[in-house]
Parts: sequence; structure tokens; C-alpha cells
Amino acid sequence: MRIAIAGGDGFCGWATALHLSRAGHEVIVLDNLIRRRWDEELGTEPLVPIREPQERIAAWRELTGRQIEFELLELTDWEAVAEAIERLAPEALVHFGEQSSAPYSMIDAPHAAATQVNNVVGTLNLLFAIRDAAPDCHLVKLGTMGEYGTPNIDIEEGYLEVEHKGRRDRLPYPKQPGSFYHLSKVHDSHNILFACRAWGLRATDLNQGVVYNVQTEETALDPRLANRFDYDGVFGTALNRFCVQAALGGPLTVYGAGGQTRGFIDLRDTVRCVELAILNPAAPGELRVFNQFTEQWSVLELARRVQRVAAAQGLAVEIAHLPNPRVEAEAHYYNAANSGLLALGLRPHLLSDATVAAMLALAQRYRERIRPETIAPTISWRKGSSQLLPIA
Amino acid sequence: MRIAIAGGDGFCGWATALHLSRAGHEVIVLDNLIRRRWDEELGTEPLVPIREPQERIAAWRELTGRQIEFELLELTDWEAVAEAIERLAPEALVHFGEQSSAPYSMIDAPHAAATQVNNVVGTLNLLFAIRDAAPDCHLVKLGTMGEYGTPNIDIEEGYLEVEHKGRRDRLPYPKQPGSFYHLSKVHDSHNILFACRAWGLRATDLNQGVVYNVQTEETALDPRLANRFDYDGVFGTALNRFCVQAALGGPLTVYGAGGQTRGFIDLRDTVRCVELAILNPAAPGELRVFNQFTEQWSVLELARRVQRVAAAQGLAVEIAHLPNPRVEAEAHYYNAANSGLLALGLRPHLLSDATVAAMLALAQRYRERIRPETIAPTISWRKGSSQLLPIA
Repeated sequence: MRIAIAGGDGFCGWATALHLSRAGHEVIVLDNLIRRRWDEELGTEPLVPIREPQERIAAWRELTGRQIEFELLELTDWEAVAEAIERLAPEALVHFGEQSSAPYSMIDAPHAAATQVNNVVGTLNLLFAIRDAAPDCHLVKLGTMGEYGTPNIDIEEGYLEVEHKGRRDRLPYPKQPGSFYHLSKVHDSHNILFACRAWGLRATDLNQGVVYNVQTEETALDPRLANRFDYDGVFGTALNRFCVQAALGGPLTVYGAGGQTRGFIDLRDTVRCVELAILNPAAPGELRVFNQFTEQWSVLELARRVQRVAAAQGLAVEIAHLPNPRVEAEAHYYNAANSGLLALGLRPHLLSDATVAAMLALAQRYRERIRPETIAPTISWRKGSSQLLPIA
Repeated sequence: MRIAIAGGDGFCGWATALHLSRAGHEVIVLDNLIRRRWDEELGTEPLVPIREPQERIAAWRELTGRQIEFELLELTDWEAVAEAIERLAPEALVHFGEQSSAPYSMIDAPHAAATQVNNVVGTLNLLFAIRDAAPDCHLVKLGTMGEYGTPNIDIEEGYLEVEHKGRRDRLPYPKQPGSFYHLSKVHDSHNILFACRAWGLRATDLNQGVVYNVQTEETALDPRLANRFDYDGVFGTALNRFCVQAALGGPLTVYGAGGQTRGFIDLRDTVRCVELAILNPAAPGELRVFNQFTEQWSVLELARRVQRVAAAQGLAVEIAHLPNPRVEAEAHYYNAANSGLLALGLRPHLLSDATVAAMLALAQRYRERIRPETIAPTISWRKGSSQLLPIA
């Protein structure tokens, strides 16, 4: 199948591009490389060195004989998007091409606006381009479990059957996201639902949990294929950060009480979920929603897991509770459905001590590259950033 | 009270500015005057001539002795918004300053994006500016009944009590808006709810129905205070359009079957609702939602009403059903709550034959100014506009 991957140079996008290429699909990566510029803006860099796009792609061809196309594309540029979609005529379009950090979106008003404009306008442009030039193309959009927030009822997959005053309807699941980034994804979801209804487009929204791990079967083939692994306070995710902190001798920093419970997923399952969605497309006019996570953990449980695996290797690390920079419930009900992708055949990689140990080993191997000063949270949900970075 | 009115040069904004000024409040109009530029872009103009902002305000002072301040302000300019809110320190901020036409937002991708960027970024900037410089200021934001769409259950005021699998919660009411404009208002609502929760801001979201009528007690005082009255296919609303079409001898054009049912409100109630919201502010941390309409009508019922009133004046006009340019249900359940503003003391101006007759008389009086070629719908929800206007 002919598959375009917007954001195919990023953490999930690159791993997905390789996975779909190996599965025999014709893969075109569309990316403006802005994620690399955000590293410069923030003074961060991935734990493991990553190569330039052309070098990565050349290595992939050398190793596998498979060709991935790369195009520099700015999704907020309507003319460029319209031209690219018409010329490429993808059968599926996987959309990872968004600003993906909640703290980044909370720095100040310009960063909140830049996040929402980048994400919402990019998705709008893709929707119009698909309508005009590739109406049968299946849009596979990465959303986030964070769109739902932490309601006091079970979280369903995108929709809720409601009975109210004796009448019934199936409605979009009410959303209570917790940052301007998560809000941008909610805005996208509403825009996509409307486009499916008004134009008959077919789309799948993958509400992804927090992704951990860094390697897939494909990225592990060669150091030139290495994927980005972010552990900093802005783009890093909890489990990745804990492993890096353990490699530094601790402490593992939990925000607040640590009872915040979220859905998590191994990167190896992310790439498989996207493939399953593509192989089983949504119907015309349908916005299908899958909750893309495999297990629920509280942040404190994850920290204890890393602590235990580290201890088994003779590495004693403490857990420290930092004042929570976010505004969020630290103890709450959380029970989310995730049966859709399992029904399509997903066989999850559940979190094992071996996976944690491998991540820890990676952090130890690249310990010299760790920038400890980038790990602490510097952006408050209440007051923004002390740094007040200019927009890149 | 010191009240800033963003969008105070527009249809609802100007009438509200005069009403609040007469009630003794200190009123500051903030506007970038873009609504007047959209007229140029679209080749439209209001039925009744309107004056330049400074001329209107001078007339108001001359007639009443009351001073309204006017500032040219671009809400998407963060630095300008931050400076203005800090300097003005409003106790209430009424936010009408948004692109308000559904058809305009459906022209093409650039107009959809411009609508959402203008509306979402403007509101984001106001939220951050209030947080930083006027945290006790009560934000009174104009939303729309169109945010809800046409669910098969009763529409409540902003929130829905849900029982699901034996658990309960009060959640944001699920939204199914029908255009990229209506979607922009849904995006705003989510952003504001988050800002109230995270920052303790106080806000009221007025989900307004379709506004009809053009005069209030204040705008009627002098021709120089005249309010804009839009009847064109892009910015005009149904009842206003029907009156202009009747003045031209008909036909009254109903889109599709005409069973589309919506909430409606007289402009004289709009200004009173905003005043009631200001006089009874939301609590810190609360996003209070009122459905701001007084009666429900189907579009066909409205057309028949105008037909009947015109007939009583010896003016026989036909009703014509046009192919619906929108994608919307033309027969559906609709029952929306609106008790909040009534409880605060609103005494509605229900639609009377006298009001229709007055609107019809206005259209007849300014008949020479009507541009008949601007009345027909030119923007399709499915294909956009045949004109594909450049962004102004």
C-alpha cells in the first residue's frame, strides 16, 4: 500500500516508517524537521545520537534494499500540502506531525497558540487536501489518551452511549484534557469528526497512551537507524526519564503523590497498532476511535518498577516526590477501554523487567551524553516557564 | 463597573456597548475592525448605513453625555493584548471578537484555518492576559447554540450528568458542531474550561442562538448609532434575510426541507443577557454556561411567519426551497434548556408580528441599498465556494 507518514522523522513516526517499509508498503515520510529545532530551542538532545533523515534512509536501503521517500513538508502551508497529497495520492496517511509536548504548550501564550495553530491547521490542511485530491485515503491520526482527562466513569473508545431523560444517543465522549497540547488534540478530533460526516472521509483516531521504550526490531538493526529517546522535562515521558535518572544514581522524580494513572504502551506495539489500523480501514464517513494503550499504571508504580529492576542490578536509587508542576488529580478513578485494537489482532508487549533492564542498560551506555540539567520540570501549569523561550 | 468589549464594533458588540454604557458602566470597545474588511472582501454591505467607530461614539456622547472608549486591538497579537489588559484592568471582559460566519469558514482550507486561528488564538491570548494581569476579571464569552449540533437527547446548559456502568459524573456536554466556525467555538469552550480549572479564572460561556432584529432602545436613538443588519448569504441570518427577500417581493429561500430547528433570540435580549451575566459573575474557577436563546423555531416556520406578516401588508411572497448548501439534518429532535438566564431575571422579547413588521419596514425603507446578488448561498459545505476568495 502507498502510505504517507506526516511527522515520520519523530519518535513514533520514524519507528512506524521502518515497520511499514519492512512490511512491504511504499512509504513516504513528510516532515518539516521542526522537532530537531525544538531540541535547539530547549537545549536538549536525544539520549542516543540520531542521524540526518537522508542518512537514516540511505542506511535503511543499504540494509534492506527498501526505499523510503522523504519530503520536507510544512503541514501549515496549504498550497504545499494540497500539491503533495495530489501528487503522492496516498492510500493511507498516518499523521504524527504535531507538537507533542504538554509542558511546551504551557510555557506562555505564544507557545500555547503556536502548539494549537501548528496542530489544528496542519490537520485541517490534510483534511481538505484529502477531500480534494484523495477522498478514499484513510487518515490514521495520532490522538492521545490525555484527551479524556480523568472522568469518574469508565473511558470508552471515542463515543459514549447516553440515556438522558428517556431518550438515547451515541455521542462523542466528553473530553477534559489537561494542557493546551492535549486540548489541540481534542480540537483535531472534533474537526476530523465533522470532516468525516460532511465529506464522507474515512479516518481512525488512535488515542495513544504514554509511549515507553525506544527500540523496535527495525531501529535495532543498525546504529544509523537509531530512534530518538527523550528524557528531558519537556519532551521526555515518565518511564524513559526514570531509567535515565536511575543510570545517574537517582533519585527518580515523581510529580506530586504519583497516583496519577495513565495508559501506557511499548513503542513496538505503537508501530503494530498503526499497521493494524491501516490494514483494517475505517468505512467512508466514519471516524473510528481506538484507545491505543496496553496497560494502566500510576506514575508511582512505574517509578517503583524501575527502582526494583535497578536494585536487582545493584543500583540503589531513591524515589523523590517533587511539587507537581501540573494541575491534575493525583488520586482518581481510571478505567479505560482498549478492546478495539486487541480485536484486530494486537498481541501486546506487556511491560517486563527485561524491557526496563534494556532501557536502563541503554541509559547507562549513553550516560556521558545525559544532560542532567534538562531533566527537572521547569514549566509550571500555573505560571508557565521561568525561561519564557522565544518561539523558534 | 469597568467593562471591556472585544468585538464591540460588530452587530451584537455595538448594541451591547451602548446598552452597558447607558446602564452606567465604564465601557471600552476593543476591535480590529476586520468585520468591515470582510464586507469589502465579500462585496457585501449592511442594509442600513453604519458610521465609523469614532463618529458613532461621538454621537453617543453628544446624545447621552456618556463616554465609550475605543481602542484598535488585534486579539491575535499577544503583546498588544497583554499590554491592553494590564493597562485597562477590566472587571469584566465581554468577548464578541470572533469571525462569526459558518459559510465563511467553509469557503476553503485557508478560510477554515483563518477562522479557527483568529478565534482560538484571540481567546487564548485573552485567557493568558487575564491570568497575568487581571485574574479576578470575569470573562463573558459568546459561544453559540450551534456548538451542540442536533443530538437525539435534550440539550442542557453546558454540562451533562452521566450515569455509566454504575458510576456517575458531571461532564462537559458532548458537542457535534456543523461547520469549521462552530467548531472554533467548541475549541474555545474547551480552552476556557481548562483555564478556569487550571488558573481559577471565572468565565461565563453564552451559547447564543440565532440573533434577529437590529434595533435596540439605544441604537434607535439616532441614525448615527445605527447597527449593522446583515442579510447576505455569508453573514446574514435567516429571519433578517427573509425580511429583505420579502421587501424585494420574494421568494423567501429556505435551505432544503426547512425542518432545521434552532434557538432564536431578539437582539434586545442579547444585550440584556450579557448585562445579567456581568451583574451575576461566575465564581473563581467556574466556567458557567448559559444557553442564550428564548424560543425554538424551524426555519420553515420562520419563513411562514414572515410570509404571513408580509401578506397582512398586502405583500404576497412565495417560499422557495433551495438545495441545502449545508450538510445538516433537515428533520430532527431538538429540545434545549435555557433556564439559567431566565432565573437571573431575563424577561424575553418573544417574536411578535410587530417585530417582524418593523424589520420588514426597515428593509422596505432601505430597499435601494439591497444587493440582491449577495443573498443566494454561494458556499457549499461539500465543495466550498465557487469564488475561492483570497484571505483578506
